[in-house]
Amino acid sequence: MGIVVQKYGGSSVADPTAIKRVARRIVQAKKDGHDVVVAVSAMGDTTDELLDKAQAVSPLPPARELDMLLTAGERISMALVAMAISDLGFSARSFTGSQAGVITDSVHGKAKIIDVTPGRIQEAIADGHIVIVAGFQGVSQDTKEITTLGRGGTDTTAVALAAALKADVCEIYTDVDGVFTADPRIVPAARKLDTVTYEEMLELAACGAKILHLRCVEYARRYDIPIHVRSSFSQLHGTIVRGSIDDIPVLKGKSMEAAIIAGVAHDRSEAKITVVGVPDKVGEAARIFTALAEAQINLDMIVQNVSAAATNLTDISFTLPRTDGQVAMTALAGLQATIGFQTLLYDETVGKVSLIGAGMRSHPGVTAKFFAAIADAGVNLGMISTSEIRISVIVDEADVDAAVAAAHTAFDLDATEVEAVVYGGSGR
Amino acid sequence: MGIVVQKYGGSSVADPTAIKRVARRIVQAKKDGHDVVVAVSAMGDTTDELLDKAQAVSPLPPARELDMLLTAGERISMALVAMAISDLGFSARSFTGSQAGVITDSVHGKAKIIDVTPGRIQEAIADGHIVIVAGFQGVSQDTKEITTLGRGGTDTTAVALAAALKADVCEIYTDVDGVFTADPRIVPAARKLDTVTYEEMLELAACGAKILHLRCVEYARRYDIPIHVRSSFSQLHGTIVRGSIDDIPVLKGKSMEAAIIAGVAHDRSEAKITVVGVPDKVGEAARIFTALAEAQINLDMIVQNVSAAATNLTDISFTLPRTDGQVAMTALAGLQATIGFQTLLYDETVGKVSLIGAGMRSHPGVTAKFFAAIADAGVNLGMISTSEIRISVIVDEADVDAAVAAAHTAFDLDATEVEAVVYGGSGR
Repeated sequence: MGIVVQKYGGSSVADPTAIKRVARRIVQAKKDGHDVVVAVSAMGDTTDELLDKAQAVSPLPPARELDMLLTAGERISMALVAMAISDLGFSARSFTGSQAGVITDSVHGKAKIIDVTPGRIQEAIADGHIVIVAGFQGVSQDTKEITTLGRGGTDTTAVALAAALKADVCEIYTDVDGVFTADPRIVPAARKLDTVTYEEMLELAACGAKILHLRCVEYARRYDIPIHVRSSFSQLHGTIVRGSIDDIPVLKGKSMEAAIIAGVAHDRSEAKITVVGVPDKVGEAARIFTALAEAQINLDMIVQNVSAAATNLTDISFTLPRTDGQVAMTALAGLQATIGFQTLLYDETVGKVSLIGAGMRSHPGVTAKFFAAIADAGVNLGMISTSEIRISVIVDEADVDAAVAAAHTAFDLDATEVEAVVYGGSGR
Repeated sequence: MGIVVQKYGGSSVADPTAIKRVARRIVQAKKDGHDVVVAVSAMGDTTDELLDKAQAVSPLPPARELDMLLTAGERISMALVAMAISDLGFSARSFTGSQAGVITDSVHGKAKIIDVTPGRIQEAIADGHIVIVAGFQGVSQDTKEITTLGRGGTDTTAVALAAALKADVCEIYTDVDGVFTADPRIVPAARKLDTVTYEEMLELAACGAKILHLRCVEYARRYDIPIHVRSSFSQLHGTIVRGSIDDIPVLKGKSMEAAIIAGVAHDRSEAKITVVGVPDKVGEAARIFTALAEAQINLDMIVQNVSAAATNLTDISFTLPRTDGQVAMTALAGLQATIGFQTLLYDETVGKVSLIGAGMRSHPGVTAKFFAAIADAGVNLGMISTSEIRISVIVDEADVDAAVAAAHTAFDLDATEVEAVVYGGSGR
């Protein structure tokens, strides 16, 4: 049998008991005949504790040193996992990102993996060892400095290792049973998906599903590595992320209506800014968005109203991460004199609800059905955006749950029996 | 001005306040015009906490993984020190032992430094940075594995860096003001030595003075690196360790009697074993010491009594670290049938008192004066051993303080004013 890459997040290795459980699971995969390579995150709150220490000595620590500090977290957890495996009578070798050949660019704090040269890992596998690799970290190609990959970094480490090692599968262990048709805390009847395509998973991740990070899914798609998202607390089959929406014949049959939609995602992390009374002249919108781009702000949805004929003024609305709200408002306020808009409105009480499914490409009625379901639930739609396989709407934050539940039911996603799940977020 | 290497132990970087104080001191050396390279230990109790974690997942963790785990400790402290320096407006770069070019053999847990290739450090110095290096760790030459140097490792790291960088001096910061003529907790009138030779410092370290580890002094002696032992809590001049006993003309003058003796050391970490009633035949002693050597036990002092003519039986006594007592007794008990000795005695209530000084080579009366002083204090002598510049005696553990104080006074080492000191031990 081939190589299996497994990833365990911070909550899976939070304490010695959890580490021993993880070790037993790793050893089981080895007993099953696989060569096993494992990427681990730092234990539980370790990263936050290290950040607190940094804060205590310097309010603005240099990014290089912050990376040096934070990478100690995975070093600790990987060594402990290797020890726990050894205690079960199997041989394990831990490797830092640098030792494992995880080569990145030089952007400290959010480096991108640009190559993986897994020579030492392959040697260790050939010698019969189970290999444990520190997630979330690498070494920069040019400067040989230690880097970290930013949020979701260990998922990306795992997928990158799987690609470099030509692994059969990359198993991402988490505290939920897989990818669900909606957040089970909002929709108790949410069903676990057995499979989902890369494109759908990308849209789900981009629309607020926290289970996998965008970069990790993008990496898996590029190298065609199947991801198995599953619980570290059970033996259940989770969700397999693989294949393209173009390769799924079943979606072409009308009878498979239920499979058209992969799920309903939601996101409460965005805010909405409206620039009121912008003179409807060529270039004014460009000025606004240039200023926001220069402030390093990523916008999500953008809507410009038709200008009122009487005044020749228009309103421009857009959504952005709430964490960027203050910076964006400051940048825009600085433009008021130049552009001459009337006022700025800032609203954090919004939520985004998204319907995602490869099948909607061939089913024109999906949009109408989605809007009708939300209207029937008494929820007002704000902004709307769509992609080939996604429809997103902005609603009042208080209406998010109702909108998600209504859409879930309308597309026959509700399970007949409620599955037991534990939901939560893991850091990186 | 040239390069200064500084070493800060765990108690000097125990918390953010301590780290900031250390950063100010490092920056001061830079302001004074030196290029500064710093070796740091792990913060306070970090190493013990990591060992506890290891113990919680595996009672006998593999040495390779233990080294991987423990080296996280210095990684954390060095990054924090670099951040604190940056917060003072100076630029610092931290480097792991591996990055700093500390090349060792492959003995995990007590590796020896076999080379230092400080290319990255030299580049960083040339770029104007203050350099912070993780103490206690290196990378093995053959296997490229992360290693630790064992107790006193950070002192050794500092001296090895100083040698490789041809530094002017290696400053070892600690929680005492320097090397004293005796432990000030026992002899309040103990005086700080302004200078001491490598040989005397080696004997002091070997005889229980905890201020510097033997390996570090050996390294400094081999490469002729002056060590300045001083307090991280004051600006006082400490003790300079440098020069050979053969190079000190002052010791040749009789008038400098007081300088004949460097100090009185003591050690309460040894035990005494007596093998009673050994047949006085050729080869029996060899059998005993071969068995102990095979059990990896380092003996200190050894005495064989003259055999009693009537029985042709002799007694053999030796001292060894208390921590090895159990293993040694087991090894010896296994020989009883073969050798036919009568019984084994084990005594942990012994202490060793040593008088050290280069001047005793040319002053035959030293031994007599030392014994007389101890006798006058009402203390019985047990075993005796000597070197060219040292006399050691075993006494009852309860008599150690009295013997030390008596010898200290007899050789006119008592200060007229008691100096303020803080005494304590730092881990590595």
